Amino acid sequence: MPTLRDLETPALLLDMARMHHNCARMRTHLAPLGVTLRAHVKTAKSAPLVRAMLGAATGPVTVSTLREAEACFAEGMTDILYAVGIAPNKLPHVHDLRRRGAKVIIILDSVAAAQAVGEAARASRDPFDVLIEIDADGHRAGVAPDSAALLDIARTLKDSGARLRGVMTHAGESYYARTPDARRAASHGERDAVVLAAGRLRADGHNCDIVSVGSTPTALFADELTGVTEVRAGVYVFQDLVMAGIGVCTVDEIAISVLVSVIGHQPSKGWIITDGGWMSMSRDRGTSVQAIDQSYGVVCDLAGKPLDDLAMLSGSQEHGIVGRRKGDTRPVPELPVGTLLRVLPNHACATAAAHERYVQVEGASPVVIGTIARVNNW
Amino acid sequence: MPTLRDLETPALLLDMARMHHNCARMRTHLAPLGVTLRAHVKTAKSAPLVRAMLGAATGPVTVSTLREAEACFAEGMTDILYAVGIAPNKLPHVHDLRRRGAKVIIILDSVAAAQAVGEAARASRDPFDVLIEIDADGHRAGVAPDSAALLDIARTLKDSGARLRGVMTHAGESYYARTPDARRAASHGERDAVVLAAGRLRADGHNCDIVSVGSTPTALFADELTGVTEVRAGVYVFQDLVMAGIGVCTVDEIAISVLVSVIGHQPSKGWIITDGGWMSMSRDRGTSVQAIDQSYGVVCDLAGKPLDDLAMLSGSQEHGIVGRRKGDTRPVPELPVGTLLRVLPNHACATAAAHERYVQVEGASPVVIGTIARVNNW
Repeated sequence: MPTLRDLETPALLLDMARMHHNCARMRTHLAPLGVTLRAHVKTAKSAPLVRAMLGAATGPVTVSTLREAEACFAEGMTDILYAVGIAPNKLPHVHDLRRRGAKVIIILDSVAAAQAVGEAARASRDPFDVLIEIDADGHRAGVAPDSAALLDIARTLKDSGARLRGVMTHAGESYYARTPDARRAASHGERDAVVLAAGRLRADGHNCDIVSVGSTPTALFADELTGVTEVRAGVYVFQDLVMAGIGVCTVDEIAISVLVSVIGHQPSKGWIITDGGWMSMSRDRGTSVQAIDQSYGVVCDLAGKPLDDLAMLSGSQEHGIVGRRKGDTRPVPELPVGTLLRVLPNHACATAAAHERYVQVEGASPVVIGTIARVNNW
Repeated sequence: MPTLRDLETPALLLDMARMHHNCARMRTHLAPLGVTLRAHVKTAKSAPLVRAMLGAATGPVTVSTLREAEACFAEGMTDILYAVGIAPNKLPHVHDLRRRGAKVIIILDSVAAAQAVGEAARASRDPFDVLIEIDADGHRAGVAPDSAALLDIARTLKDSGARLRGVMTHAGESYYARTPDARRAASHGERDAVVLAAGRLRADGHNCDIVSVGSTPTALFADELTGVTEVRAGVYVFQDLVMAGIGVCTVDEIAISVLVSVIGHQPSKGWIITDGGWMSMSRDRGTSVQAIDQSYGVVCDLAGKPLDDLAMLSGSQEHGIVGRRKGDTRPVPELPVGTLLRVLPNHACATAAAHERYVQVEGASPVVIGTIARVNNW
């Protein structure tokens, strides 16, 4: 059997045991809440891993790109929510997917976008399936649940022959919710926003069979989701240092890491130099605003055990600089040229996106079980 | 002919006229200095674009990954410097490339790495070709040019039957050199470091036919390179906001941009929301330490003209938030849903790496000339 010592570095490792644990945790948490899990593909970007998230073969799923939609559809998943406000230039592709049998649902948050969808609906004789995006916390996109615009959008869709299916929201601010109570409050905020919006739409005579919320922090801490039909989440499949930093997971639940080699040293600076630069880790520095700044990542030994407080302090394209955090004056451990290390990422979505495949491992074993391809780009 | 309006967004655009201008500028600058340009593939990651950099078909080239080496070799380029300190796990691949006819040169900066290469040389009966990496400015890797270690490494290579070809350095600190004088000084520092090291190696009886320096800021501002045989540079092919921020280029010389669509608005916040998030721009924030922080990028109209001081202020995975910079209280211009924008990147290497291909355009024309594939990953 090949082992990690047979690989060229850098390489993206996926600990299958941790990944399955993370998937089971989410399903177990949601089961008593009476909601469907609509797994978000954006982190794993791989149909086999999405099946592991769902514990089922065919969905439903959320995608962040139409390429993810194509990959899921090719593997038999047909219930697909494309959860980025629709750009008019993507409507022909969405229609083509639907014509081939994918039940793609799109989202929008303005009368202008509803008009564009309405025009495409008339031209293609495809009503599309549309959710209105609700703003639960001022984080990003969406229309306020108590706004006049909500009803204007619904009426625009109805007048143009497009098909309104319901509402969705994403509490992006939950990524900064550092306590279980704060995450529960964010979950209640998501729920209350979409339930209010759905009630207003129904009272105005519109259909609203999908009431969708989600983010990893709110999903894992939700306690009461009356009125919600489904939960979307993605990053929990791997977890990462940002999630660990706010208490959503522990560091030893993080399922992906980047395997790197020591290629040199600068002893006078306390630097260990590796062949894992920002190209393999991404430039994400999500923990820089947290209580503990993990720099570019936590450095572990080949078995995945964090190494005596070493971090990847900085990086250039294909070089990583590993050392002690600021203020820690202890000498670095001896790690000769050729030593293999695993680096845990700030943000799983960004680090995984730097790689075209996962190398599957399990726990501390160096045995390579296999590889799984990713569906990157657009 | 297809135009930018026929694309799905986000998409990476390459202005061929600007790219050719940047390539000509570098060749014109280096021509009187009596050095060879060894184009760095790390930015363009595409053999056709490397040919444009060289103004020639077959090299020499510098690569940051062995996959770049494979792609260049497949296109007839055989003189290839792999400019990341060699990890022992890559020596079989390097040997295999060499066995097939690629004259791959590797680098190292320690006796330990020289011993690993020596062992591989004996086992494979391939002497390899080796440069010793010199530290010119304390930026990253390399051995000091006046150190005892320099000669120890050379002797270790000689004793093991490996072939020393010379020395190389990279003045990474030049990325922070904000004046022409500072960049010339950095170039002199690169030159002096490798010329000193080469002199000491020759005096100790070692071959040193390659004396290699390079970075875009030092290459474009070098004025005297006696003793240097070749210059490596990569980012100049596209340029970017970091290079513009230190004065190496102007904003209107930047050859790549990301085409995005407006998908919504948050008028109360002055936000225009696009479908270009950090996934398409990268998380690189290189200008954050410069005099003008360009956030995630400068926002231009469809013709590539900067739009009234708009910047991409932040992003999530597939969403960009465009607005005015901090302190600028003017209202944002009206950009309806579906409006196409071009966003100029902080760091060309990082932004281009988020995409699998370039869409070729020229100047302000919306006509799509064609596409060029990239060679990403490892």
